[in-house]
Amino acid sequence: MVKTIEWTPEGVVMIDQTRLPTEETYVTCKNYLEVAGAIRGMIIRGAPAIGVAAAMGVAIGIQQAASEDLDARMEEICSVLAGTRPTAVNLFWAIERMKRRYRELRSVGASVTAIRNELVTEAERVLEEDIAINQSIGRHGAELLPANAQVMTHCNAGALATGGYGTALGVIRAAIESGNSVSVLANETRPFLQGARLTVWELQQDSIPVTLLTDNMAGHLLHSGKVSAVVVGADRIAGNGDVANKIGTYPVAVLAKENGVPFYVAAPISTLDLSLASGEDIPIEERNPAEVTELQGVAVAPPGTTAMHPAFDVTPNRYVSAIITEHGVARAPYVESLRKLASGRTNAAS
Amino acid sequence: MVKTIEWTPEGVVMIDQTRLPTEETYVTCKNYLEVAGAIRGMIIRGAPAIGVAAAMGVAIGIQQAASEDLDARMEEICSVLAGTRPTAVNLFWAIERMKRRYRELRSVGASVTAIRNELVTEAERVLEEDIAINQSIGRHGAELLPANAQVMTHCNAGALATGGYGTALGVIRAAIESGNSVSVLANETRPFLQGARLTVWELQQDSIPVTLLTDNMAGHLLHSGKVSAVVVGADRIAGNGDVANKIGTYPVAVLAKENGVPFYVAAPISTLDLSLASGEDIPIEERNPAEVTELQGVAVAPPGTTAMHPAFDVTPNRYVSAIITEHGVARAPYVESLRKLASGRTNAAS
Repeated sequence: MVKTIEWTPEGVVMIDQTRLPTEETYVTCKNYLEVAGAIRGMIIRGAPAIGVAAAMGVAIGIQQAASEDLDARMEEICSVLAGTRPTAVNLFWAIERMKRRYRELRSVGASVTAIRNELVTEAERVLEEDIAINQSIGRHGAELLPANAQVMTHCNAGALATGGYGTALGVIRAAIESGNSVSVLANETRPFLQGARLTVWELQQDSIPVTLLTDNMAGHLLHSGKVSAVVVGADRIAGNGDVANKIGTYPVAVLAKENGVPFYVAAPISTLDLSLASGEDIPIEERNPAEVTELQGVAVAPPGTTAMHPAFDVTPNRYVSAIITEHGVARAPYVESLRKLASGRTNAAS
Repeated sequence: MVKTIEWTPEGVVMIDQTRLPTEETYVTCKNYLEVAGAIRGMIIRGAPAIGVAAAMGVAIGIQQAASEDLDARMEEICSVLAGTRPTAVNLFWAIERMKRRYRELRSVGASVTAIRNELVTEAERVLEEDIAINQSIGRHGAELLPANAQVMTHCNAGALATGGYGTALGVIRAAIESGNSVSVLANETRPFLQGARLTVWELQQDSIPVTLLTDNMAGHLLHSGKVSAVVVGADRIAGNGDVANKIGTYPVAVLAKENGVPFYVAAPISTLDLSLASGEDIPIEERNPAEVTELQGVAVAPPGTTAMHPAFDVTPNRYVSAIITEHGVARAPYVESLRKLASGRTNAAS
């Protein structure tokens, strides 16, 4: 399986997701500013993956920070990394986790060398845990799919969006590992084409059957009766179960409900933001409209075209059939079920 | 205003819609096979426009047909033109009209020269009438829009899709002519990008404010409360008001209803197919999947990707707020209101 992100002595190595599938190239970020640039420029993307990247960004930043000024440098590193993208909460979760570890080490009087080593260990732990979490999400989600399921997914919530294995695609992988014959319908996911470029490529690597469609074909397919379930990832889930995910998720959820197709969200507990009462409070990133008017550098609209580019949308909880986490499956009412899962108890309802 | 299609002594001249907006080039079809090729290859597209093209295709075919064999040649010409695209009913309507005129001329013993001249006149009449019809659709539709309307449209149902003026964009033009300040949200309309390439370009020519969005952003916008109405064209409307239109129309209709935004279909009476009881009977064209995996010749998916390409979808009548025709505005129940409008009586409900 492809390695999305890795800690090496030379720096933080990432597969360049802006160049897939045309080129399989790797970028080595040699300092925390390069990690921040890679997150901002979507060399790495996907909520769990940018969490891992942020953790490694903190670690590499601290390796290179002047030892006499460590607290201030830690603040600065975390602040720059937190400013890269606003919507995925895993970014802030990972930075908070690294800060907590840093404070622990400081409070016990650890040496600067020890702090540097321990933060690398912590970042690598975030990566390893993420893969294990995804395998657990996969096992819980696989049970929800019928035999010979045809699963629609939007964007890429796969190995490339995580430390490995994937959330939504983890559910598909686990279903296949348990003997189910699953095929995938991948929405291309304009403007960045994560579906066409990343999901199709990733599934091809694992020989999982996949058919590509443009985003506006999803309604026709959901109406056709040929889709068993929709499974997507998430960038942030509010306390009431409203889900922020890649732009275009909300229409798929509405069309799934309208046609009686279950709509599942697969995400780690770190994607929950119980501090938010509803999805209306989730900040939605506005990206460069040039990503809409151009495609892989080719203009698709006349010069001077005004365009907009909200990068995410919010799916109200009433369209969400279930949220699949590593601790089990949450169903409505989400205010209760999510709080229970977040507290670490496995959900009896799963 | 741009001329979509024109009869000239050199042949049938069309603006090449596969090359807009990068190049404004014109193609001259010198025989009916070239006209058929232009329809099939989407040099000209849009239900009313391909109706005009088919009429001119019949006319140019008969100019060049051997006079001793005219009935058989007429059959062959009509058959080839009817085989170009299956979904838009205007194609078949226009061919049927040319056949009817041909039979009339034959029945009164017109000379071959007279038949040739009269069929050119008839094809030019189809074009002129189409523009007048669109202006009438525009007047009826303009009354439905609130002041300072922000109107979403999908695909291109503009001057480029018709003889001129447009159906959905005709409603917008008429509203502006009547003093309303209308702005447009144009869905890009993958895979062929009629929204990004044609609607944006056409509106820019007329200085009508337009903002481009990817198809999967439509839901977010409709949910935002910023869209006053959706207005689209149609390729075929069944007797019960189910509407076949460009792929991606059905999801927009569902999302409009879900968010309380009126969804209007603007189309001439020639788009009605009262012979069909419901939209389930409308044939949906499957086009080349390469139009999905590539964009303007640039690959957007890995080599060997399986893709699908249904070119149209069907919007069930329950999502359609009204159908705007040149004879007035039809509302549910459509079985009655459409039959009344088709019979030529202006609708009191308009």
